[in-house]
Amino acid sequence: MHSEIIAVGSELLSFGRIDTNSVYISSRLAELGISVRYKQVVGDRIEDISQAISLAMSRSQIVFITGGLGPTNDDITREGVAAALSRVMKEDDQVIRDMEILYRKWNRSMSENNRRQAMVPEGALVIPNLNGTAPGLFLQEDEKLVFVLPGPPRELNPMVEDQVLPLIKKFKSVAERPSRILKIASVAESALDARIEGIYKGYPDVDTTILSSPGVISLYFTWRLDSLDQAETCLDDLTGRIKAELGLSVLTDREEEMAAALGRLLKEKGLTLALAESCTGGLICKMLTDVPGSSEYFLGGVVSYSNATKEKVLGVSPGDLKEHGAVSASVAEQMALGARQYLDADIGLSVTGIAGPGGGTEEKPVGTVFIGLSATETCLSWKVQALGGRDIVRQRSANQALDRLRIWLLTGK
Amino acid sequence: MHSEIIAVGSELLSFGRIDTNSVYISSRLAELGISVRYKQVVGDRIEDISQAISLAMSRSQIVFITGGLGPTNDDITREGVAAALSRVMKEDDQVIRDMEILYRKWNRSMSENNRRQAMVPEGALVIPNLNGTAPGLFLQEDEKLVFVLPGPPRELNPMVEDQVLPLIKKFKSVAERPSRILKIASVAESALDARIEGIYKGYPDVDTTILSSPGVISLYFTWRLDSLDQAETCLDDLTGRIKAELGLSVLTDREEEMAAALGRLLKEKGLTLALAESCTGGLICKMLTDVPGSSEYFLGGVVSYSNATKEKVLGVSPGDLKEHGAVSASVAEQMALGARQYLDADIGLSVTGIAGPGGGTEEKPVGTVFIGLSATETCLSWKVQALGGRDIVRQRSANQALDRLRIWLLTGK
Repeated sequence: MHSEIIAVGSELLSFGRIDTNSVYISSRLAELGISVRYKQVVGDRIEDISQAISLAMSRSQIVFITGGLGPTNDDITREGVAAALSRVMKEDDQVIRDMEILYRKWNRSMSENNRRQAMVPEGALVIPNLNGTAPGLFLQEDEKLVFVLPGPPRELNPMVEDQVLPLIKKFKSVAERPSRILKIASVAESALDARIEGIYKGYPDVDTTILSSPGVISLYFTWRLDSLDQAETCLDDLTGRIKAELGLSVLTDREEEMAAALGRLLKEKGLTLALAESCTGGLICKMLTDVPGSSEYFLGGVVSYSNATKEKVLGVSPGDLKEHGAVSASVAEQMALGARQYLDADIGLSVTGIAGPGGGTEEKPVGTVFIGLSATETCLSWKVQALGGRDIVRQRSANQALDRLRIWLLTGK
Repeated sequence: MHSEIIAVGSELLSFGRIDTNSVYISSRLAELGISVRYKQVVGDRIEDISQAISLAMSRSQIVFITGGLGPTNDDITREGVAAALSRVMKEDDQVIRDMEILYRKWNRSMSENNRRQAMVPEGALVIPNLNGTAPGLFLQEDEKLVFVLPGPPRELNPMVEDQVLPLIKKFKSVAERPSRILKIASVAESALDARIEGIYKGYPDVDTTILSSPGVISLYFTWRLDSLDQAETCLDDLTGRIKAELGLSVLTDREEEMAAALGRLLKEKGLTLALAESCTGGLICKMLTDVPGSSEYFLGGVVSYSNATKEKVLGVSPGDLKEHGAVSASVAEQMALGARQYLDADIGLSVTGIAGPGGGTEEKPVGTVFIGLSATETCLSWKVQALGGRDIVRQRSANQALDRLRIWLLTGK
């Protein structure tokens, strides 16, 4: 069984806006073992919408149409659905009543345009929208299911979760597919695949999806069969073998970022952290503070973008700055020590490097990065050579630094 | 004249990956006055690819197909094109020669699979790929143009720029459309549109596109007509009126981020900046250092995520922290002063606030943010109420802080 997603909206065809709803829908469908086979994007034209839906109905069992349900005259998805399915439009009393309640609550009057949102194709089941005014629609045509959903993610996502998935489970014999996630740090995608391909290829009943970002690779394993008998055992077996193969490179088996996994580890050990960032320029602090509650273990950091700041705030020796340069093991170590002492933390972590595009030399090309770590009786540094443009070098360096700290917390090395 | 973009790749249908090439292509086409009317995404199945192309050929004058040109057996876009256009596949000598040169340079041997990349539909013009092994293809069928392009953006983007756009100009009578951009800071989209709608609606020959992000709204104005006679005058007139209406809210008329616009201003005035960040946790430093060359005016910053750091490093008064709380005007001002003095900068800028999800109170709900600014004889603070989740609150606060500094640099207020 496969599905198809149609995103409606002229802004999705222009530069700058992109359909991301389909990614969310795909991820939720994957949990039910339903794949997405086609996506289409069309503008706010009734004939384009209707043509896209007709095509989708001819080839897919479940069709999702997102966007174009608002109150303005541009929003004509409902009419496009009616045209494609040859249904007349009629006003839905419940939608009118729901909107009246909402507008009274908001203390605003309902415009004539808002009434347009109550016009629905005949036979459509209205799906209430708890986070906006445009309701969703559910239609059946032969054996096929059609869902019409609002464009804003904060309206669409809960509607999918709370109402669409249950409807799909009710009308199609599908169930949650057990799945696992493993996140892997500091291993290149090609090297990783060479090491684990032999393992996951031995599990034909599991779908393996590999997604890489600079510094972290996510492995998704989803059970493929309708029968769930062997699912949990088989997934545990597979992930157990991959964990054994990759050892410490396995960052987490949860859907969480590197900074969150590291944060749990710091909290478990009751340790506090201070940062000193040069080339990453605040990115690592930002990643750490993306995690709610990070103030429990993250005290703060110093972004020392100039040599003067490295000297004055972090106490880096001017002599070493001159002799070895700001991008060196010795400066990285002193930065980490300076941050730790200065902020009264248990651990100091530092990054100094050349993010580019300028500043590279033959000896230290763009992407040369030193990571420093300081703790009581510990002073370590690592050299990393990161490939890519300025953004990528910074992201890789940030993830590598956090990963070095993670490994050190686990092994003392 | 309109175009259509087909992205090929099963990974684009799964969760986690998304087609972004179409956004780049759309933006470059817009400069030639060519709109994108449809997008399709299909997986690596020959019949799906071929069906998508046939549909596109039936309704669009220019068709772009991206992805699926690599050397593996999954990469079957070339075969899909041949099937849709009923052409046979033949080996292209030039592609083989180019690949041989590349592999010799890399000191690697060419695999049999790589030879597949030299198989092209008959009549296709091969477009050399200067950043990878998979060449692009250009085909003509009746009056229609078909471009087949590699998936990786670092290969696709320069190929579009250097080879595809010139081919389109050669075969279709199109020319660069003059355009303008204005970036607007710290104005809500609805309020902005109410102020400028009356202006841009008076210019029917100009396409206006409005894209908003937390804290910054971009306005794109593109000349719509084939005749360019009045274009420059008309665009200058329109943007001049919008600048007059919005005054200081106009951040820049270049394609640049807030931090870059602010950086130019600091450089012009020969001033240096230091940051003190609490709730934004390094985000502002990161935004400033996203700009290459920012070390000329940005000295560094302190991320003071704990009260102890605010006291010890920034010299914030413990009494004020206790009496007014860390999220207060007086603490924001002391943080700015502390950063300025500490890093020896001309200006100190600070942000302290409640990013959420926890930490809000009735008096200071989530989203309450104070911005502080310190310079010789200057000590200012502003209270901001930001709406949205943790990420959005942080982004808005960061942009607001940079914008406050920008306005202060321009007006002294």
